Amino acid sequence: MAEFAEPIARLIDEFRRLPGIGHKSAQRLAFHVLRSSAEDAERLALAITEVKSRMTFCSVCHNLTDIGQDPCAYCTNPARDQHLLCVVEEPYNVFAIERTGEYKGLYHVLHGALSPLRGIGPDDIRLRSLLERLRTLEVTEVILATNPTTEGEATANYIGCLLKPIGVRTTRLAMGLPVGSDLEYADEVTLHKALAYRREM
Amino acid sequence: MAEFAEPIARLIDEFRRLPGIGHKSAQRLAFHVLRSSAEDAERLALAITEVKSRMTFCSVCHNLTDIGQDPCAYCTNPARDQHLLCVVEEPYNVFAIERTGEYKGLYHVLHGALSPLRGIGPDDIRLRSLLERLRTLEVTEVILATNPTTEGEATANYIGCLLKPIGVRTTRLAMGLPVGSDLEYADEVTLHKALAYRREM
Repeated sequence: MAEFAEPIARLIDEFRRLPGIGHKSAQRLAFHVLRSSAEDAERLALAITEVKSRMTFCSVCHNLTDIGQDPCAYCTNPARDQHLLCVVEEPYNVFAIERTGEYKGLYHVLHGALSPLRGIGPDDIRLRSLLERLRTLEVTEVILATNPTTEGEATANYIGCLLKPIGVRTTRLAMGLPVGSDLEYADEVTLHKALAYRREM
Repeated sequence: MAEFAEPIARLIDEFRRLPGIGHKSAQRLAFHVLRSSAEDAERLALAITEVKSRMTFCSVCHNLTDIGQDPCAYCTNPARDQHLLCVVEEPYNVFAIERTGEYKGLYHVLHGALSPLRGIGPDDIRLRSLLERLRTLEVTEVILATNPTTEGEATANYIGCLLKPIGVRTTRLAMGLPVGSDLEYADEVTLHKALAYRREM
């Protein structure tokens, strides 16, 4: 009797498989589910199965898309600029860029960034298909919009080197002081970038 | 197109309802589910519904029990010492105590601890039923095994005061240095307790 009953032990186990969820969190989540109403639990379970039965990733750009719409709405929209390709780490980064309303080109979602420490190499992210797309697409500029982190930077540099022989213009999102912030509170690395990439007025 | 499709938005929303899961974590979890195999997602969904359809809380001690076994196996086991009642915060605390193999009495699960800061008062935890049980049970000792935290201590003190008029012996788990630790690394409060509760050799 000193062990959890099988259904709760299994739920804890399933929660533990999720990223960033340790044993204690999994336990707390499992007991939360048990305490919540049957409707709430059912809704969570349904949302999980629905997402798998209704959503998938575009076989071209690897962004999120509805099952039945592959290639996705971005890849098949003739109004999008076919000469621009924006490379991001995660599907939700696409939404962040879309919200600016500034970008009307195509996307390529890597599903991760290079990280030797976590054992993520070039074959673990969608790099091969990026190179394949660049062979068929008539892209004039690749915008590297990976995160401004060590891993995102390393990934952008790596892709930059790969694309050099192809001769396509490759740009990187600007790094510098965030708008509305204060010099006083800027970290050293950001301030360093802001100085290094200063513009003529 | 700048918003998530409905199934993924709903799953993010459902994950956010879980305790300790913010917007970023919910997003990461939802995309993890989407990336995992259909079998893995199905297993998680099933574990959630199973736990609700197969497990419940004992109507007597509020511990975890199988549906169909209420009161639970602890409450109905005549081999358990009916004169001892151990009060814990959470169902998983019961398993921690069971694992010691030292305790053979009954349990009472509060499902939380008093926390004025988080708005959790005496009516929000299973205190009323504890007092009712003490009226019918022939308990000679109540062991307060709430956590050695501010909230657990406050709860133990509060219950201690409630039980004083009843005249039942009320004890609290010992606090002090954890076995195998080092004085050097003990925090001040723990060392303070270890000194205050020192025993004769």
